Amino acid sequence: MTASTAQGRDPASLRRHNLRALLRHLHLRGPTSRVGLGQVTGLTRSAIADLVGELTERGLVLESGSSQQQPGRTGRGRPPLIVSLRDERAYVLAIAVDVDTVRIGRVGLGGNVLEEMATQHEHVPGDPTPGLEQLARLVRELVTTTEAPPIAVGVAVPGLVRDEDGVVTRAPNLGWHELALGQRLRELAEITAPVVVGNEARLAALAEHRRGAGRDRTDLVYVSAGVGVGAGIVAHDQLLTGNTGYAGEIGHMITNPGGRTCHCGARGCWETEIGADALLRRIGVVEPADRQSELERLFERAEQGEAEALDAFRQLCTPVATGLANMINIFDPGLVLLGGLLRPLLRYAEGELRYNLERIRGLPELPVELGSARLGEQGHLLGAAEAAVSSFLASFE
Amino acid sequence: MTASTAQGRDPASLRRHNLRALLRHLHLRGPTSRVGLGQVTGLTRSAIADLVGELTERGLVLESGSSQQQPGRTGRGRPPLIVSLRDERAYVLAIAVDVDTVRIGRVGLGGNVLEEMATQHEHVPGDPTPGLEQLARLVRELVTTTEAPPIAVGVAVPGLVRDEDGVVTRAPNLGWHELALGQRLRELAEITAPVVVGNEARLAALAEHRRGAGRDRTDLVYVSAGVGVGAGIVAHDQLLTGNTGYAGEIGHMITNPGGRTCHCGARGCWETEIGADALLRRIGVVEPADRQSELERLFERAEQGEAEALDAFRQLCTPVATGLANMINIFDPGLVLLGGLLRPLLRYAEGELRYNLERIRGLPELPVELGSARLGEQGHLLGAAEAAVSSFLASFE
Repeated sequence: MTASTAQGRDPASLRRHNLRALLRHLHLRGPTSRVGLGQVTGLTRSAIADLVGELTERGLVLESGSSQQQPGRTGRGRPPLIVSLRDERAYVLAIAVDVDTVRIGRVGLGGNVLEEMATQHEHVPGDPTPGLEQLARLVRELVTTTEAPPIAVGVAVPGLVRDEDGVVTRAPNLGWHELALGQRLRELAEITAPVVVGNEARLAALAEHRRGAGRDRTDLVYVSAGVGVGAGIVAHDQLLTGNTGYAGEIGHMITNPGGRTCHCGARGCWETEIGADALLRRIGVVEPADRQSELERLFERAEQGEAEALDAFRQLCTPVATGLANMINIFDPGLVLLGGLLRPLLRYAEGELRYNLERIRGLPELPVELGSARLGEQGHLLGAAEAAVSSFLASFE
Repeated sequence: MTASTAQGRDPASLRRHNLRALLRHLHLRGPTSRVGLGQVTGLTRSAIADLVGELTERGLVLESGSSQQQPGRTGRGRPPLIVSLRDERAYVLAIAVDVDTVRIGRVGLGGNVLEEMATQHEHVPGDPTPGLEQLARLVRELVTTTEAPPIAVGVAVPGLVRDEDGVVTRAPNLGWHELALGQRLRELAEITAPVVVGNEARLAALAEHRRGAGRDRTDLVYVSAGVGVGAGIVAHDQLLTGNTGYAGEIGHMITNPGGRTCHCGARGCWETEIGADALLRRIGVVEPADRQSELERLFERAEQGEAEALDAFRQLCTPVATGLANMINIFDPGLVLLGGLLRPLLRYAEGELRYNLERIRGLPELPVELGSARLGEQGHLLGAAEAAVSSFLASFE
């Protein structure tokens, strides 16, 4: 964290920079004493008092005596003033859109989920308008019951999102193409807050990094398998976006050039090797009418220890390990977090997966931990919230 | 670039921070007027004058009237004072070690190669000491002829280098294992300057980013094929290092699980599919006694337009394109730079390579430029120099 007060630089811009540093710290680290804020920013006591004053006036923070004894401190003297975020007033709206479901929630600065709901997505294939109108309605409903408007809105979508303008370039399962989702949602919901849109897997990786199993890591790879394979990579504490925002399409890494044709047109993409359909093929289910029910039945059978169901997971371990080995050799992430179908895979075939990973990856020097993503289905929503917070904080610069 | 003078922060640390900001700007952007330095750092005229004074005293910079007319400026008034690096005094030593050859050079702050030589590597398989003693001798020879000692030393090696302590974990072609190269070189050459060691392909990527075909890009992937495949990735203007420093081992990305066994133990690693031996196999040369001569003969035949030689390059295009497609889908780098054997491949089979890349990669949304690395054989040396400069600049913080 850097913060500064300097002669020779535009004072207004420095002030915004320092306000942002304080908010960012409170968002990521929680309530902090004035002294603590001074230590992490390097600012003087009077500068901190002045900045906290402004944040208080703007309704973003409040100060109170320490509610709990600080560990390692004796009870002498005045209790320190603790600065906390007023998350009932300073909150973002987070939305996670899927083919069947829309989740929406209010998430406070600081990461608390204040309110959350899920509803069926009124999705009309080929026409994004009914779905967008539904989103706008949900946003309006949530906003009217609260005392302040959201400071920003984040939306997670299963598709490619262009960094430059936030347009959803392509979301195959939703039939969206070049959709200016953020702009249209702002118009339809009549909100003035910024709306940021991102790929759901990238956002889930961000959420795991800030709030989940990847806290205090500088690097991680998050991989989630469903019908497709989504991923997000954090390197040097930053979510990898690439040149245009599309970095992380590891589902389309070719791991078997002689394999099946992927919907993208290429052959042997990793997601054709390890996605839901590849898993179901292992138990003889081809082109299922209701994929979700078939998967749930398979999980139940595996949970009961049925050999055929467990075998299906075990058979998937070699192609899963191949792609994971590639990720490890490419990123040296230290930590690989598994989401979606890879979580039950870890549950039912962990030994087989680890054995194959060690067998396949040629560079034992690269240390790696393999674990489950912690946030599960909430990852997309929490990631959308984090992206919204980042956009709010960026508005200070 | 950030620079600041602030109350409330340790003044000595701030001063070092600002000195570093000036040096870094001069290193990357070249001679700059005091006014220009003020603009990029946000510091006042008097602060700049003071800092430039210290750098002048330390022998790192000098000031002079503008030697050339600034574009767009009329000739009125005093010519502005231009601050330049004194690269005869402020230089790094750069070393690139290979199985056969050692290159060593003096590279000034600012990137000018002041002096450079190549010699046969006195490499004894299994015993690193003779090679290290040779390096130390070369360093001493170069240092004694100059007016000042180097500010830092950078060494590029064909192997895995651990970030934490700079130890070469494994350099298979040199037979090195857990070698504390930097520390031993400092002792043997009796130098006090810091010595940084890095993987040669990662350093070449850094050099292309700062001095070569990737200038002014925020993201790029550099891939170089020889006996193995080396790579370096720049994302968000930073060289990707990963958790322990090993990121970028894309030669061991498995692109053909049914393929040949790699020296790493895995099967179908990309480097077994596209490395020098894979190329030579295409013209019927298996386990060559002198690989380098065979390759040179092949290049000559290709240059003369011989069908069999050109076909060898063309046949390599599908596996090369497969790995490149993966890199593009994973990193969305915008720019892919090809080095080593991939440069003649681009020369003799560019159409075939581009055709296959478009055919294989499934996501046409990801824009990508394909080009040759510009620095060629000098890339390792210049990358070692850049790493040394970075370590010198980091010593200010």
